[in-house]
Parts: sequence; C-alpha cells; structure tokens
Amino acid sequence: MAHDGLKSPSKLAADTLRIIPLGGLGDVGRNMTCFEVNGKILLVDCGVLFPEDNQPGVDLILPGLDYLEGRLGDVVGLVLTHGHEDHIGGVPYLLRMREDIPIYGSKLTLALVEGKLREHRIRHAELHTVKERDQVALDIFDLEFYAVTHSIPDALAVFIRTKAGTVLHTGDFKMDQLPLDHRITDLRGFAHAGEEGVDILLADSTNAEVPGFTPLERDILPALERVFAESTQKLVVACFASHVHRVQQIINLAVKHDRKVCYVGRSMVRNMAIARELGYLKVPGDLLIEMSKLNDYPDDKVVIICTGSQGEPLAALSRIANRDHPVISIDAGDTVLFASSLIPGNENAVYRVVNGLTRMGAHVVHRGNAFVHVSGHSSAGELLYLYNIVKPRNALPVHGEPRHLVANADLAVATGVPRDRAIVAQDGDVVDLKKGRARIVGRVDASYIFVDGSTVGDITESALTDRRILGEEGFISVVVAVDLRDGSIVSGPDLSARGFLEDPSIFDDVTARIAKSVRSALDEGVDDVHRLQQVVRRTVGQWVSNTYRRRPMIVPVVIAV
Amino acid sequence: MAHDGLKSPSKLAADTLRIIPLGGLGDVGRNMTCFEVNGKILLVDCGVLFPEDNQPGVDLILPGLDYLEGRLGDVVGLVLTHGHEDHIGGVPYLLRMREDIPIYGSKLTLALVEGKLREHRIRHAELHTVKERDQVALDIFDLEFYAVTHSIPDALAVFIRTKAGTVLHTGDFKMDQLPLDHRITDLRGFAHAGEEGVDILLADSTNAEVPGFTPLERDILPALERVFAESTQKLVVACFASHVHRVQQIINLAVKHDRKVCYVGRSMVRNMAIARELGYLKVPGDLLIEMSKLNDYPDDKVVIICTGSQGEPLAALSRIANRDHPVISIDAGDTVLFASSLIPGNENAVYRVVNGLTRMGAHVVHRGNAFVHVSGHSSAGELLYLYNIVKPRNALPVHGEPRHLVANADLAVATGVPRDRAIVAQDGDVVDLKKGRARIVGRVDASYIFVDGSTVGDITESALTDRRILGEEGFISVVVAVDLRDGSIVSGPDLSARGFLEDPSIFDDVTARIAKSVRSALDEGVDDVHRLQQVVRRTVGQWVSNTYRRRPMIVPVVIAV
Repeated sequence: MAHDGLKSPSKLAADTLRIIPLGGLGDVGRNMTCFEVNGKILLVDCGVLFPEDNQPGVDLILPGLDYLEGRLGDVVGLVLTHGHEDHIGGVPYLLRMREDIPIYGSKLTLALVEGKLREHRIRHAELHTVKERDQVALDIFDLEFYAVTHSIPDALAVFIRTKAGTVLHTGDFKMDQLPLDHRITDLRGFAHAGEEGVDILLADSTNAEVPGFTPLERDILPALERVFAESTQKLVVACFASHVHRVQQIINLAVKHDRKVCYVGRSMVRNMAIARELGYLKVPGDLLIEMSKLNDYPDDKVVIICTGSQGEPLAALSRIANRDHPVISIDAGDTVLFASSLIPGNENAVYRVVNGLTRMGAHVVHRGNAFVHVSGHSSAGELLYLYNIVKPRNALPVHGEPRHLVANADLAVATGVPRDRAIVAQDGDVVDLKKGRARIVGRVDASYIFVDGSTVGDITESALTDRRILGEEGFISVVVAVDLRDGSIVSGPDLSARGFLEDPSIFDDVTARIAKSVRSALDEGVDDVHRLQQVVRRTVGQWVSNTYRRRPMIVPVVIAV
Repeated sequence: MAHDGLKSPSKLAADTLRIIPLGGLGDVGRNMTCFEVNGKILLVDCGVLFPEDNQPGVDLILPGLDYLEGRLGDVVGLVLTHGHEDHIGGVPYLLRMREDIPIYGSKLTLALVEGKLREHRIRHAELHTVKERDQVALDIFDLEFYAVTHSIPDALAVFIRTKAGTVLHTGDFKMDQLPLDHRITDLRGFAHAGEEGVDILLADSTNAEVPGFTPLERDILPALERVFAESTQKLVVACFASHVHRVQQIINLAVKHDRKVCYVGRSMVRNMAIARELGYLKVPGDLLIEMSKLNDYPDDKVVIICTGSQGEPLAALSRIANRDHPVISIDAGDTVLFASSLIPGNENAVYRVVNGLTRMGAHVVHRGNAFVHVSGHSSAGELLYLYNIVKPRNALPVHGEPRHLVANADLAVATGVPRDRAIVAQDGDVVDLKKGRARIVGRVDASYIFVDGSTVGDITESALTDRRILGEEGFISVVVAVDLRDGSIVSGPDLSARGFLEDPSIFDDVTARIAKSVRSALDEGVDDVHRLQQVVRRTVGQWVSNTYRRRPMIVPVVIAV
C-alpha cells in the first residue's frame, strides 16, 4: 500500500464515481470521505483527530479540507453518520469555509452538532434531520439511511445511489443483537442494498484485527452490578460523555441501589441533558441532583457520573485524583469505576489517575481488573456477516490505522471479494469506480491540518520539530552586542538556559571561549551579524556536547549597536 | 496508603530489622531494597526506571541512592536477583559511590553486569557468583538462594536470616511448571523457608491484578510455529534482548524450518553471545550468520532476530520500518513478528512501527492478533500458591505501581495475613520488623534521581516543567538594547520564535507596542534591566494570549550598553 509514487489524478470522466478519503484511513480519527460524480460532491462525516505525543501542543487535527478549497460551490451536502468527535468535530471548520452546506444527520447527531456550532458562533447552518430508512434525493445523489448500533445512540449507515454506481458506507457500527434501546443494526436493509447491488462497501475497520464477536453491552451488567453491590461509601463512575447507553446502565443500577445521580463534567452534564430531552436516556423524575447539593446526601446514597475516563488532565476525574476538585474528594474505602475503553496512547495518563486514586485508598475498578467495558465496533466475526450479506463488488476499508485496514481487507477477500478489488487506501488516495470496478488512480493532498489555540493550519511540521527538541533538551541562549565600527564587544556574551542545567556557574568557562571566538572573528574582519551568530552557535554547540553529551537548542543573538 | 505525614524515623533499635524500599514501590522499575540490622546494611537489586512522557529528555531514573550517602561504609553487600535493567541498571551508579561493594548474583546476572561495568569503565568490582540453594554468610546476614522462573534465565529469590527476623524476597518470578530449561520456581525451598518461619514476604506485584495463571512459555509455540509455516519470504522477529527462552524457541523453529539465524541490534548480539557461551542458549554450530552475509542467502532461508520490540526509535526494527536501516529492508509479503510484551505507555511508538511495516506490505503478527507472548510475572493465582506455601507473618508487596501493590496485599489478606500486616508501602517508607511484627515507622527521601546525558541528579523538576512548556508551546524571545544614560532604545526590539508560528510578520504590530512600553518605562525613570524585562514580558504575554490563545515561554533580554 505504498502509494507515494502516485500523481494527481486526471480530470474525472463523466459517469464515473470518484471517492477520496480526506481522513480516517491511516488513523482512528478525522473521518471524512468525499464522493464526486459529474461535477457534484457529497461529503460523509467531518471529524477531528486528537494529537499524539509526537505532535506536542496541538489541540486538534482536521481532515484534508484544503482539497475542497476551490470546490466548495460543487458540494451538495454533508452526511454525518453519528455524533462522535472523530465524525463531527471538524464541522465548524468546514462551515467556516462555506456556512450553508446542507447537513444531514440523525436527531441526536444534529443536536450535538448544534452545541458545537454555538460555541463557534456559526448561526446559519442548514441542518436536516433524517432517520433510519429515510430516502433523500440530494441533487444527483440518492441517499437511504439504515440504523446501526454503536457506542452512541442514533447512528446511521448510508446507502448512496449514483448514476455511476452504488456505495454502502457503514459508519461506525457493531452488531449487538440485544442492544439496550432495541435498535439493532439493520441487516435487512443491508440485505436489500446487497440484492440491489453494492458496487463498493466502505466498512468500519477499528476492530478488524479482533477475532470473534464484540460482546453485548448488557454483558457487562453483572460486573457493574457487583460494583454497586460492594460499594458501601462514595461511588464515582467515569465514562465517555457520549456513551448514553453506558450511562443508562449506571442510572438503572442507581435506581435499584437507591442512589441519587450527579453528573460532573461540562460535556457530561450537557450531553446527558440533550439525550434525556430527546428521549434517548430514561431518567426517573427526582433522580438527578446538582453538584452543589452533593453534600446534602450521605456518600452511599449518591453515584457520581463524571468525565475523565481517558485521564484527560483537565477533566473532573483527574482533578479529583489530584485533590484539586472544588467539591469532590476521595476517602479510603470509596469506589471509582472506569466504565470505559482505554484508547491506545492514553495508558500513562489513565494509570496515573488510577494510581493517584489508589494512593487515596480508593477501590478502583477498570477494564484491566473487571469486565466493565465492551467496544462499540464490530469485531472480525461481525464484519464477515457484513460482507456475506452485502456481497459488494469492491471493498474500501475505512476508519483505522493501516494495520486495521489491511485486516479488514483480508476479511473481505475471505468472503469472496477479489484481492485486487479489496482496496487498502490511505488518506488522499483517489479511488475511481467505473463500470463496477474500483481502482486507485492518483493522490491529492490530504495532510494534517493542525488546530493550535485559535490558529488553524499555521503550525508547521518544522515548528513541531522545534517543540520536540525544546521539550527533550531545552535551550541555551547567548546574547552578544558588538560594535562593528571598531570591532569590539559592547556587552555580553550573556548566557541563559531553560529546560537545561540551571546553575548559571556552569557557563563560566564557555563564556570566555565565546568572547574569544567572537573577537577573533571580528579581528578577521567578519562584519556580518549572521556569521557571528554561526560562530557563537558552533562554540557553544561543541562545548555542550563534549561536556554534557547533550544537544539543547542553541539560540545565538548578536546585535550590532 | 497516604504516608506524606510521616517524619524521618527514630534511630534503629538493636535487634530490629529495618526495611527501606529505595525504588520499585510505586513504579515498575528502579527496584532496590535496603535491609538494616545492628548497623549493617544489605541491599537487594539496584535497577533503573525508564522515563515517561512527562519526564522529557530524561535517559534513566535511579533509585534513592542519596539515602546511602553517609552509610556506604556499613553496606556489607548487594544481592542481584536477576539480570533485567530494572534490577541491575543502577549498579554502575552505586559503584561510583563505592566501587568495592561486594555483589552477589547468578552466573548470567553477573555476566550482564560485567558488560555494563565495562561501559562505565569500572574495573575493580567485587563479583561473587551464587546459584540456587547456595548459602552465604554475609557478615550478620545469612543468605539462601532459591531458583525462580522468569522471562530471563538464572533468576533467584533470596531468603535472608537475621538476628531480628527472616525475610523472603521473591525477586521477579512466575510459576511456569514446564519451563524450557526445566528450572522451575523452587516451591520446596519456599516451603522449607515457610516451615522455618518467614517474618516478612516481599513478593512481585506486577501481575497481581491479573486473575488466574500466567500461561506457559511453551503455550505460544503453536502460534510461533504457524508464523514460520506461513512465511514464504523474509521473516523478522523482534523480542527483548534478554529473553533467552523466547530466542531459544525461535532458534528451534529456525532449525526445523531450515532457516539460518541472524541477530540484529547491539544488545541482542551481545546478550545472546553471553547466553550461548554460558550454556543458557543452545545453538547448532553453523546456524548463525553475520548481518554482512545476509544477502548471500535467499529471504526464505533466514530469520532475523532483532531489537526494537517496544518501538524504541533508535533500535533496529524502528530503523527498518523507517527505511533507514543500512542492510535490512522490508518488501511486500515479508513477515514481521513481535514476540514480545507491550509495556504500557509504549503503544503509540509500537503501533507507529507496526503501521510503518504494514504500509510496506509486511504481514505483521503481534500479541494483539496472535498468542505470541506470555508474561514473565506471576498472576493472582500463582501468588495465592506463594502465600499459602510460605504463610508469612507479614507481607510487603514490592515491584509495582500502587494499583499492583494493593492487589497483591489483598491476595495476602485472602490467604490469612492480617490486614494490618499486609503493608502497602511506597518508596522511602521505613518498615521496622520487631518481634515478628512489621510497621511503617517513618519516611526517608527516595525521590527520583534523573540521569540526562552525562549528568546525574542535576536535572530538577523545574527544568522538566520548563521542558514541558517549551515542548507544548515553544518560546518567543525579545531582545532590546537600551542606553540607560539617555534612556533611549539603541537596538530592537527584535522578536524571534521557535516552536511557535514562524512567519516573522506576525510580530510587526507587537514590536511597536513593546518599543512603546519600554520607552514609557524609561521615561518614568526605570533604569533596572530586570524591571524592563518584566515590562517586555507583560506586553508580549498579553498580546500572544489575546491574539492566539496560547502561552509560549517568553524570554525577554534587555541589555544596557
């Protein structure tokens, strides 16, 4: 799957379907796919990717929106499959480019998008609510939506009919056969699409490496029940603020065990209010209490449902574990339950919180020591069902790292999709579907767009490289003022360091050396500030690497007065 | 287990055994325990801890060696339980404090230590080889060693008899009942110790949270066998350079499948040569080939055993995945096997390598998609056997994060150790054993000692805080030269930034503002360079936070000429 040789694609021929993943093929995140036929563009999802430790200081990463720059007028609509950040988080940034792009999604999905748009002060978005089995004629694209089960309610798959061929995009899904809301993945709908003919299937790859079947959400009830049964004091439950069904299970147990429920964490409070108002979450009238009222109730009469299950440093649970939460504290014998996944890369952060709570004497239950979480994505076994019921002519695995996409393609091939039609693509690859045959025909730029503070796209890879050096080694700055007329040093060299050894006396001997090398450069007639800075950098660089075997960033400043 | 109130302990009474964990209780790493009776000190293990992402640029973390500063003369010896870095990595730094401390360990353990000492140019170490069931009278400490099974051969537990009581220290161990070398954990020895009477048991907590039993090393053979059977091209196997038994399994399969073996990676080459020479690794005469000879053999006639299973950026496998290995390249259809654990915190690094290899078209097998690794530590089920056969009067769980220590203490209690004698301690806690009763009686300083380049202990927490800020946000430096006599600006303000936005034009408007605020300060008669720097910092800080919602480090340099 090394496509680096590919060039930008030829102009799109008539009656050909062009599919361009602008994000989500290579990472789990920033999901976005672009479909084009006869000059019209349909978008599916517009999510964000959360940065890794090698992208320091970055807040969010957007899909390859640049590709749409010149084409915004041709976009007929954006379909959102569900309300997770990696599928809707980029919407405000897309609408900044063109605010009136029509958006289609389920009731819950759009409710979550609305909150996001308010925060970004976007007022004129065109939101169209759809539900499973709805059919929508969107310009030249005919859409039909199917219910799918996921770790957030009201998720949809979309079947796209075009003059150039048909596409089934599953969105994120699993096949829980006994979901809490009885809304199962619509295999009948998938069967109809398959019988009608699916030219290309885009299926969720997240768990394609995982053999067997994802357990049912209700399978974790016994473990949750046990936590409630054994808790005699304060009980804190952390989970994703969008996992309505997980919260529903906690609420049902709270009722059964006679505990009130208190939401803690901005997104938890906001999302659960939305979910309840729209009827996705069933909450008995007097069950909820405000955080301000917590102290009016005995510890064993309340369950706190809070954010921070991934160890996010600013979230409620981390603050509780650091003893800096304004209201909630943990005492020996309290129980903290992580009813949540552990996203790869978050282990250090999460276990820092677990250990902090353990030090306080809390009994901490997490997926590592109890069966308190199930995934929201189909495992290999379920994906085989999908391919066999749809029988697509081509497969384009989406939503995963390369290892996931390859595993998903192997499953497609195992069910009869020819190897050369099980396409393992990466972000920016251009896949053309012509006469029922899909091929990679080129590449466009779909590289990362970094959001950092209020800047979008201004932080470059080289700035990140500098951050990595600074973060590992710190810097030494050297300031020298020279008089170029008489070739003398007027002031300095003054050395200071941050993130390096802090005792200024370590610079005593090198300071003289720098002065010496600057003077001899001046004597040799060097009258160029930049060349003098090179002299300083070289002198300091050799000294620090010989003396300390380190490579801090060296920042020489020579000013001529 | 919040011990922060504890003060330094009273002078040690006669015939009392004082136990001080100087590392390894709170982290998995830097294991070291200090035992003192009647003025004599025995040390067990002296390992390093590898830094986490919140300790940027740190190479190693040492145990609390400072505590020994004034006591080096009282140290009668150091016992090393096995040859892993987290148990021997700190030895050179201890010997720098006193080179002739007698060291006791098994043949393989000491061979690995010797290599380490050579690197540190330590020539006069006193190394004493011991083996299972040896008894050693070390001053007032009587030692007896027992064989234990672990993920490195020749590991030992140590039974310590003193006038003040007896200690059984398991070191790292599991209870594989069919180990490849038939050297099982010596439960008979543990039984003898138990019958004689164990006042306090220090047991490995690493897997105390894991229910059931650690599978046998040989249980992974079928999965390894399958990898060999299905590989038709190049085969690369990554594993720990100390995991002799894992390498033995690969070697046995290489012989069976008619492949030569090539070690790649400095520590793999060195350690396997030692293991073979000492008889821990059985290698047929003509099996090994040099890396330089690799190209003389067809791809399907060689297996490459290399380092880098944890995604270490400089190790062989990462360089292969980045296409910058001098000799080895990966082609579509090659196979790469991670026959290794995935240490929490390394996920991003490891999956970056997995995805890089997958992009090259390699078939990547790892513990996430095949049963190709088992742990080297006892799970809860085995620890219950341990406690029941030893029946200690007190338990002091070692080797783990707080969550592991607590889980281990719970197992001790489940087997009958009274709750108040199952002591969950942390590094620096002072545990006194008197008349068969152990209690935490105080605390000493056992804080982290950072090794960074060639400096030991000079990098402070505040330097790390600076690194974290620089790494997240970068810095903006501002240089202004002023003439304090006439209160004029001679040069600047000159702004430059690293790890921040790089377009210098962004500074245009703030530059004028800085000049303005400096001038007005000078007009107000401010003639102190540091106060002028405060003025600059404030001006830039407000501007950057209002304009970009960011907090880069601001480095103002005002020089008077």
